[in-house]
Amino acid sequence: MLSPSLEDYLEEIYRLSLTAGTVRVTDISRKLRVSSPSVTKALRKLITYGYITHQKYGLISVTDKGKQKGSFLIERNQTVQEFLMLIRANCDISAEAESIEHYLSNTTIDQFKYLGMFMQNNPDIYKRYLEFIELPEVEQSDIDE
Amino acid sequence: MLSPSLEDYLEEIYRLSLTAGTVRVTDISRKLRVSSPSVTKALRKLITYGYITHQKYGLISVTDKGKQKGSFLIERNQTVQEFLMLIRANCDISAEAESIEHYLSNTTIDQFKYLGMFMQNNPDIYKRYLEFIELPEVEQSDIDE
Repeated sequence: MLSPSLEDYLEEIYRLSLTAGTVRVTDISRKLRVSSPSVTKALRKLITYGYITHQKYGLISVTDKGKQKGSFLIERNQTVQEFLMLIRANCDISAEAESIEHYLSNTTIDQFKYLGMFMQNNPDIYKRYLEFIELPEVEQSDIDE
Repeated sequence: MLSPSLEDYLEEIYRLSLTAGTVRVTDISRKLRVSSPSVTKALRKLITYGYITHQKYGLISVTDKGKQKGSFLIERNQTVQEFLMLIRANCDISAEAESIEHYLSNTTIDQFKYLGMFMQNNPDIYKRYLEFIELPEVEQSDIDE
């Protein structure tokens, strides 16, 4: 199992490989706002695990295993973001998804997806949910720390 | 902000204080399956932050600030567990809640609660959700790693 940090690296490397075609240490460093030595350290581990390879001229290439895992990580992130938007969590959706995605089991992610599909298939029910969360007595029941 | 580990300690100490009345290092050590030196180290931090105090005869007492935070942590854990049961996540509910609760914002936790209230207020809708997730075409759409 990859650590949360390595999952983030692989997700971003795969994303960059899809959009930009080529990936270099500096691209990852800029995207994840981390130092080049940190990126190099992470890359070494991802190479050991067989997710990426280092090519000539400093180019990074994603292996088939890396593509499969990267694709899973991107879809998981997408599912968590869509779920948070669906339930109308009033937070930084992208940051919250990044934060929790590593700790969710695949079965919970699946249920997030099913709930989204259920609401999409039943817009009348989703409308009722949206009306429900706007009720004053619901808004007043927040857990306060 | 408390670290995930210190949140777990405070949650358990407060829980023990409610059920057993008195709390000692050995109780926490047994409950959280960690060594006594680790517990002592955590207790020192919780004392510094003003959540607990160390009394005579090795007894630990929870301050008002600790009770407030402990009560929040227990309610948060409860809400996350109930949410996972509601959507029918097929995982170890207790372990999954312990794992993700530290990374969820309060606003997301609130929406978990609202969704639960919504389904409780509309048992017909919840029944339709349960029927929906049993459909073969839904079960086949799992994200696979």
